[in-house]
Amino acid sequence: MTEGLESLVTASTRLSHVDGEAGQLILCGYAVEDLAPHATFEEVAYLFLHGRLPEPAGRVRFARDLAERRALPRPTIGILREAAATTAPPMDALRMAAATLSLGSTGNALDDALTAIAAFPTIVGAYCRLSHGEEPAAIRPDLSHAAHYLHQLTGVLPSPVRTRALETYLNTVCDHGLNASTFAARVIISTRSDLISALTGALGALKGPLHGGAPGPALDMVFEIGTPDRAESVIRAKLDRGERLMGFGHRVYRVRDPRADVLARAAERFCRHGGNRRVYDLARSVETTALRLLREHKPDRRLDTNVEFYTALLLHSLDLPNDLFTPTFAVGRVLGWCAHCLEQLRDGKLIRPQSVYTGPTDLHYEASGVTVS
Amino acid sequence: MTEGLESLVTASTRLSHVDGEAGQLILCGYAVEDLAPHATFEEVAYLFLHGRLPEPAGRVRFARDLAERRALPRPTIGILREAAATTAPPMDALRMAAATLSLGSTGNALDDALTAIAAFPTIVGAYCRLSHGEEPAAIRPDLSHAAHYLHQLTGVLPSPVRTRALETYLNTVCDHGLNASTFAARVIISTRSDLISALTGALGALKGPLHGGAPGPALDMVFEIGTPDRAESVIRAKLDRGERLMGFGHRVYRVRDPRADVLARAAERFCRHGGNRRVYDLARSVETTALRLLREHKPDRRLDTNVEFYTALLLHSLDLPNDLFTPTFAVGRVLGWCAHCLEQLRDGKLIRPQSVYTGPTDLHYEASGVTVS
Repeated sequence: MTEGLESLVTASTRLSHVDGEAGQLILCGYAVEDLAPHATFEEVAYLFLHGRLPEPAGRVRFARDLAERRALPRPTIGILREAAATTAPPMDALRMAAATLSLGSTGNALDDALTAIAAFPTIVGAYCRLSHGEEPAAIRPDLSHAAHYLHQLTGVLPSPVRTRALETYLNTVCDHGLNASTFAARVIISTRSDLISALTGALGALKGPLHGGAPGPALDMVFEIGTPDRAESVIRAKLDRGERLMGFGHRVYRVRDPRADVLARAAERFCRHGGNRRVYDLARSVETTALRLLREHKPDRRLDTNVEFYTALLLHSLDLPNDLFTPTFAVGRVLGWCAHCLEQLRDGKLIRPQSVYTGPTDLHYEASGVTVS
Repeated sequence: MTEGLESLVTASTRLSHVDGEAGQLILCGYAVEDLAPHATFEEVAYLFLHGRLPEPAGRVRFARDLAERRALPRPTIGILREAAATTAPPMDALRMAAATLSLGSTGNALDDALTAIAAFPTIVGAYCRLSHGEEPAAIRPDLSHAAHYLHQLTGVLPSPVRTRALETYLNTVCDHGLNASTFAARVIISTRSDLISALTGALGALKGPLHGGAPGPALDMVFEIGTPDRAESVIRAKLDRGERLMGFGHRVYRVRDPRADVLARAAERFCRHGGNRRVYDLARSVETTALRLLREHKPDRRLDTNVEFYTALLLHSLDLPNDLFTPTFAVGRVLGWCAHCLEQLRDGKLIRPQSVYTGPTDLHYEASGVTVS
């Protein structure tokens, strides 16, 4: 038995506030629905790293600094080629490549943070292309952070509306209290280790299906249903078989996850301007039916659409394949990890809990081999 | 302010029991002083992974299985060459190389554990040689685990007494309750991520100077003192200046760290049989003087020689350079990490504590740039 520390407060933070009862998420003082759809990712990054939104001149300088860190060191590209040759999962490739970012590091934590935030989109984009037998796209320091990620994936300049949709996603998921990956990063950096070590550990945690590793299946049910008229019968059959509906319910939020609304509106806006309207309409219809049947089936439990459902819908609409959903999550979340590490370095002490031993204590070793005296 | 969870129990374990009040360390049921100096590392590895010591036939099979996993995949050697070219710290090189072990992984956790335990000595040894412009030593599946590590470092077959000294060290440090790196590994694997991800995170934590990152300085004072007759004046001057004496005191043990005794005896035995007797005698004399002066200086506080002092003495006697002390610690501790991960996968649930938010909640974003509608 291991306690999950669910009700335990292990850190104070000024970065984000998750109120699961009220369905509210605050990002550095701003409600997610106020900040995420409007701010640039660069502004949000500045906010998380410096505690306030930038002045105009600082905004330009910061964006330029970030843009100049997009190119990957040669060993980082090298390990991506090796990973592509063995068809490694993209999250493993991202973790291996991120681990090598210390090769160019100055050892300054803020410097490492900027490098990692700038490099993650290039790593994921380059790996996506290498996996398909294509060379990485050219580095474009003239594009915004979100546009650059889309360009790295496709080699094509994205439209402003497509960029805005991705940017809203990255902003929305950039931090979320002490989730398991953020906690892993804080535990690692609490030993006064370096930021790249902490981010590499966090990527390992994010890969796990109990954390960020499973947004893909949320849309599988939508595709299985295929047309709105089949929604009721398919979902009812699932509930009768006792299956869990992917995309509904969250362990923290007791009411609607505020990120779901932000992503729903972003998906809707993008689908109105060039995205796949059919999948959007189908997903909304499946959602309505699922919520109705869930309330009918479990009237005592409040199960709402979660962030995974709209993550999957939005990223699918942006033509991202399922296996890039979690790496794209990491492209946003790396910002929160960095900010938490800087906060932990400033304020924190070694995180080292206790275990309780439940085994024997009185065994005696009898040497079976040759002893050396 | 961040709580360090010091008094908090976050896991049950059958792996090790640290009793800081009694100065006792139990490893899977055996007192460290009973097990570590006598068992082979392979026996201890089996004990930690399977919960009991092996039968003779199982012991042979297990040792052979481990020995067959010593060779590194090509990308792992490749990243070590890149790291050596930039003179990366050995702990960074080990973390980067360990991260790539997933390239050959079957995804089975026990399988990954055996691969990592077998590969860590090869990685550290190969990196040590590459850093000095030498090619890695040949893989020798006919040697024991401890002898193979020494052979990887030097290219020379170690004597039985040298091998036994290192083996005692590896056994002594293989596990120690929920230290920060072990906790990091458990947090990561608690998301149902993979073992290599968890070990990579643990390596990041071990690098930190508040954890395993600073056994080197413990011996610096001994060298600074140089001859036994200078011990009293040098140490007294340090204490008068309010300096901390490296190598004395531990945050968990209130009495003598039982590992210090095991390592002291191992160092003594090795120094009697070919090691550097002069450094050993000097270190013992410095220790005696330091303990006397510490008690004189802080009579209300019990400060004993800690494991770092004898780690440094033993590893220095074995001709390991300071910058390999922490990587060698990792070569032993990877066993505990693996066993904790397997235990967490069997028994644990998601480790995800809470944070408390101390920032504002009512800021409002005013768009400064162009909005896309």
